Amino acid sequence: MSEKYNDLKDLGEFKLIDYLTQNVKIHHASTIKGIGDDAAVLDHESRKTIVSTDMLVEGVHFDMVFTPLKHLGYKAVVVNLSDIYAMNAHPRQLTVSFAISSKYSVEAISEIYEGMIHAANFYGVDIVGGDTTSSLKGLVISVTAIGEAKEEDLTYRNGAKENDLLIVSGDLGGAYAGLNLLQREKEVWKVNPNMQPELEGFDYVLERQLKPEARKDVVKYLAELGVKPTSMIDVSDGLASEIYHLCKNSEVGCSLYEEKIPIDPMTHKVIREFDLDPTVAALSGGEDYELLFTISQSDYDKVKGNPHWTVIGHMTDKSQGVNLITTGGSVTPLKAQGWDSFGKEKEE
Amino acid sequence: MSEKYNDLKDLGEFKLIDYLTQNVKIHHASTIKGIGDDAAVLDHESRKTIVSTDMLVEGVHFDMVFTPLKHLGYKAVVVNLSDIYAMNAHPRQLTVSFAISSKYSVEAISEIYEGMIHAANFYGVDIVGGDTTSSLKGLVISVTAIGEAKEEDLTYRNGAKENDLLIVSGDLGGAYAGLNLLQREKEVWKVNPNMQPELEGFDYVLERQLKPEARKDVVKYLAELGVKPTSMIDVSDGLASEIYHLCKNSEVGCSLYEEKIPIDPMTHKVIREFDLDPTVAALSGGEDYELLFTISQSDYDKVKGNPHWTVIGHMTDKSQGVNLITTGGSVTPLKAQGWDSFGKEKEE
Repeated sequence: MSEKYNDLKDLGEFKLIDYLTQNVKIHHASTIKGIGDDAAVLDHESRKTIVSTDMLVEGVHFDMVFTPLKHLGYKAVVVNLSDIYAMNAHPRQLTVSFAISSKYSVEAISEIYEGMIHAANFYGVDIVGGDTTSSLKGLVISVTAIGEAKEEDLTYRNGAKENDLLIVSGDLGGAYAGLNLLQREKEVWKVNPNMQPELEGFDYVLERQLKPEARKDVVKYLAELGVKPTSMIDVSDGLASEIYHLCKNSEVGCSLYEEKIPIDPMTHKVIREFDLDPTVAALSGGEDYELLFTISQSDYDKVKGNPHWTVIGHMTDKSQGVNLITTGGSVTPLKAQGWDSFGKEKEE
Repeated sequence: MSEKYNDLKDLGEFKLIDYLTQNVKIHHASTIKGIGDDAAVLDHESRKTIVSTDMLVEGVHFDMVFTPLKHLGYKAVVVNLSDIYAMNAHPRQLTVSFAISSKYSVEAISEIYEGMIHAANFYGVDIVGGDTTSSLKGLVISVTAIGEAKEEDLTYRNGAKENDLLIVSGDLGGAYAGLNLLQREKEVWKVNPNMQPELEGFDYVLERQLKPEARKDVVKYLAELGVKPTSMIDVSDGLASEIYHLCKNSEVGCSLYEEKIPIDPMTHKVIREFDLDPTVAALSGGEDYELLFTISQSDYDKVKGNPHWTVIGHMTDKSQGVNLITTGGSVTPLKAQGWDSFGKEKEE
């Protein structure tokens, strides 16, 4: 972005919008009218329109001490795209809104927006609108993602059947391992701001926390294999919480095998360094943005041995409940302690 | 809402969503899947999809001292619907998100949500999703409205032509008059909290500020009369600012006649009480949520004498600029001092 402004007050809302949006590109013919009118106009033709929205709040969802601004913008987009992919749908448009306190410069907001544009270009979605306003304290980002899908492809949370296989993409607990590392370095930095952070060699888990990706590829692979999941959800709050959502909506039970839960070796190492249990990190850590889905047993041959995902359990009759089969072989009810922003809330 | 909860922390996000959304009704067949999955699914068939989003921030857009909670929820919905009507389109779905500080009880959030449901029912739109999270300070509400329209009905900001008539619905300045009254009473209340507010007899301007309506009826009347505006925008920032938007986007000039600007007698009286100029209140006050539109001269016979709107000027060649023809007959360039949240921002 060429021109430089510093004070939001001098710039005003309309000029800020012009300034931020000058590099927004349109990728889809379905985006008939983007930024610049009272509303955007989209044309999803014979397809269904999919809508999802998420809010990110400074001090609750992100910590400015260790969050690079571009990554923050990128992540704000990705967490919303992840919800669209979790419907087995394709994101097409985004609206992005900011409430900004006076401590932020135009430069800072501009960097966040650049991260959003970067994500929009990478995933091929169009930024079509938004709102910018001031806040009394901190930064709030609200993103709404709009997608499309053929009706027959849409995958809800309520279609899992007894004996369906439970599958998760990628690996889990990494974002939580990264968060622990970053929080430790913040404490060190508080004591001695001249200390260099010890984060080298931890790229994978740091990136899982700071710049996660949405599993667009998994939706593509499933389509190529001719497999339609019977239910699907994205892992934003932690594996256990998401399994409970699928079971509750589908009215089934589940047997989850601890030894099958995919955990990257670096995640394992970092979580152990903090005297925590890697399985608990995978179950309750959250923010992994992997896709959790169920498929019919008859599709097993199509998905087996695929490097992009792991079969971690199967669905059971509702009466059997939601259980973890531990590595030791014991059966215990699964505990769901998903990430809850209200539980983490600080007093004013 | 039957059960009573008080602490957001005890309830948690998922139960809060269940609790808030238990009275949400679905009005449209186009809402295939509403609240309760990763995303909502909509079917606008052969029509175009229209999307608009707005954020309301405590201390910037509303003051909890004088804003009834239900009205706040109602207004948060209305300001978004207004943007969809300003496209000559019909709102169908909404997503509503909250960032909530610990000073709010479940009861309070529930009242705001009831106001949203009330507006959704009144305007016949479906609440299909959202997000709730905590904030470090104050309340932030983000609403996204989704609508539909036939392509040929859509009205943008860029279609006004030279000699088109400029028309505004209802009357202007009322919301600003109401705001002045409320702020005066707040000052009185600060000095003596036992003092009863002196607001009796001012219902009209107070309602314009606290519980505005979107001009769904105007879109309907225009369709019935067979008039398609050449351009349209809603009056959220003030008449002057909106005229500049139409002129900039349409590349035309404008002559606005001061004596034609519709101002309610009560607005006039209140604004005069504050030693302010009613014309300035109409031009720069904002938040009236009336529709400002242009029509071809050839449609004049269809719209003339209509009690729902007033012809206030006409569009000119761009080179003539944007001018106010005062009641005294002098011609001066119109000043656009729209409402700008960054200008009003308080330091942290």
